[in-house]
Amino acid sequence: MSWQITKDDLSDLARGATLLGTGGGGDPYIGQMLVERVLGDGAITVLDPDEIDDDLFVIPTAQMGAPTVMVEKIPAGTEPSLSLRILEEHLGRKADATMPIECGGINSMIPLIVAAETGLPVVDADGMGRAFPELSMETFAVYGVHGSPLALAGERGERVIIDTGDDDRQMEWLARAITIRLGGVGHIAEYAMSGADVKRTAVPRTLSMALTLGRAIREAREANRSPFEAIAETLSTTLYAHVRTLFEGKVVDVDRRTTEGFAKGVARIAPTDGHDEELEIRFQNENLIALRNGELVAIVPDLICVVESESAEPITTEGLRYGQRVRVLGISTPDMMRTPEALAAFGPSAFGLDETFAPVEGLALSEATTA
Amino acid sequence: MSWQITKDDLSDLARGATLLGTGGGGDPYIGQMLVERVLGDGAITVLDPDEIDDDLFVIPTAQMGAPTVMVEKIPAGTEPSLSLRILEEHLGRKADATMPIECGGINSMIPLIVAAETGLPVVDADGMGRAFPELSMETFAVYGVHGSPLALAGERGERVIIDTGDDDRQMEWLARAITIRLGGVGHIAEYAMSGADVKRTAVPRTLSMALTLGRAIREAREANRSPFEAIAETLSTTLYAHVRTLFEGKVVDVDRRTTEGFAKGVARIAPTDGHDEELEIRFQNENLIALRNGELVAIVPDLICVVESESAEPITTEGLRYGQRVRVLGISTPDMMRTPEALAAFGPSAFGLDETFAPVEGLALSEATTA
Repeated sequence: MSWQITKDDLSDLARGATLLGTGGGGDPYIGQMLVERVLGDGAITVLDPDEIDDDLFVIPTAQMGAPTVMVEKIPAGTEPSLSLRILEEHLGRKADATMPIECGGINSMIPLIVAAETGLPVVDADGMGRAFPELSMETFAVYGVHGSPLALAGERGERVIIDTGDDDRQMEWLARAITIRLGGVGHIAEYAMSGADVKRTAVPRTLSMALTLGRAIREAREANRSPFEAIAETLSTTLYAHVRTLFEGKVVDVDRRTTEGFAKGVARIAPTDGHDEELEIRFQNENLIALRNGELVAIVPDLICVVESESAEPITTEGLRYGQRVRVLGISTPDMMRTPEALAAFGPSAFGLDETFAPVEGLALSEATTA
Repeated sequence: MSWQITKDDLSDLARGATLLGTGGGGDPYIGQMLVERVLGDGAITVLDPDEIDDDLFVIPTAQMGAPTVMVEKIPAGTEPSLSLRILEEHLGRKADATMPIECGGINSMIPLIVAAETGLPVVDADGMGRAFPELSMETFAVYGVHGSPLALAGERGERVIIDTGDDDRQMEWLARAITIRLGGVGHIAEYAMSGADVKRTAVPRTLSMALTLGRAIREAREANRSPFEAIAETLSTTLYAHVRTLFEGKVVDVDRRTTEGFAKGVARIAPTDGHDEELEIRFQNENLIALRNGELVAIVPDLICVVESESAEPITTEGLRYGQRVRVLGISTPDMMRTPEALAAFGPSAFGLDETFAPVEGLALSEATTA
């Protein structure tokens, strides 16, 4: 069933998308402001992926760049739709709908800007089921839809088209170079596909999940209930069924650099009660691996989410500060993101990690609500 | 009058184009091999720019990258025509002819590869009248034809289109990033224009001049005449009327780095007779400035050419070696390359040099033939 997004939904969606951003994906609150400006009192139609026509022509839209730059360099707002138009012109075909390639972080919002500007509907699905740092890390690509041709729009109206055939890593490599030279942020349209492709390759209903999660956290707070219970309850009926508390404590160290177009670094969290324990999180835009006293407790593509210890408000890697009281959650990804092909594209080895993937529900045994 | 290029012309053309490359522009002998392979016993038609139709549709073709890389990374040979085809498809119009953007160095040959493969004629003109390191340094751009959209082809079939509107420096900036990520070399089609645009903005008859120069040097050697007299005689009837000997001696120091996609450095030449004199040449792919004992004797866009002291064989910056006996020539560029607009695009300040442009014929008084 199709449904509508209005401005009243946006802050809940932003909160949920930040959680799914697993520390990265860019700040959706900036995206939220841009959607609000274009949307006004209007509404965006969201299509359920199971119900779309097989020959619907879908052009996903997104922003690429380092989250640390996005915070300082707010886009003009016209680039997202321009990227769609460039790809439509290149392909000689108008899009019937847009879609996120990444439902975590700001890229939950970019397709909504496009939808609000163009009147196109948005498909409730994405290609990452969370956030990842590279354009090739897509379930689309894993299951046979490739990113090329990619259209990229810059803030001064620059138009770039990149076509690397089936080689999505080369597409990422070239598009990243352009993004860096544009000052760190570019807007892209890529992975154009049919409705049948969406059904076969996309992670379904991630936009609605982000909205439902964000709303559940807010409503729990308003009702003085535990937001962690609300998170676990919401996810229990989705493809992301398992939630674990990996650690609670305060941030004692953050080492973060923006390098080669990415925000890379390490965060350390220690107990507030002085126990001799530590959680180490390594990130490349997103949180990739969590080690408790050197022992693996969660690893990409499972979600590692740092949230405020009382409110469960999600914290991005660029929002991490010394002394913050936090809880770290591990959330299981859908099965289609844990296949051998999927792990080759965005599992530990894709990030240069030596550790082997192991499901968070087998590694960290305590439930989020009981830790 | 149109004329023909056959395989027998190619080594003379390569020699002349290396001279016009002023140290840079890439090695035309590699280009020559590629042309020979495609051309066989065929012929390429060359069109005189004064005689082409005003509505002829011309798509210039070239290679971009650092000459030091081009020597090590010989192109597959199919990329030049692919770049033309990408731009034709993007513009929805077939080219009637191709043309060099740069008649110095390897880019004298790239349009010939395209012509031999496609059967298109080549216009006898270019946009640099020599070689320059950046795509924005074109008389085309100076006189109102812009480079965008640019099509770029990579050796693994990568296709990139860059459109930065009137901003040719931004086009260069983005295309250079792609070229670097492709390993240092890319093939491009850009500055698509009409026959009327060619007449208004191109430096005329530079391809025939390169061929005539190379032939004159060879014939002088074969007849035991001075090749330097042959150079001066050939140029005297062209737009490059003034030739000066700036220095004679041996190479005593070469400091060369490949950085940011360019070959940058300094060469020093000292007299063989032990006199306490020195010529310093600074280069960025091409020779930019020549200082004799610290005093300016030639500066970009005038040509600074290092040649072997006996044979007048031109030497590229990557071919410079300690101990080589050389003569350094200064050659005046056409008036259309010395206007204030032209100097803003490719004069000293465009290369970060503090010196003001001064014509070589006013700085270095001795004639090449008498030094």
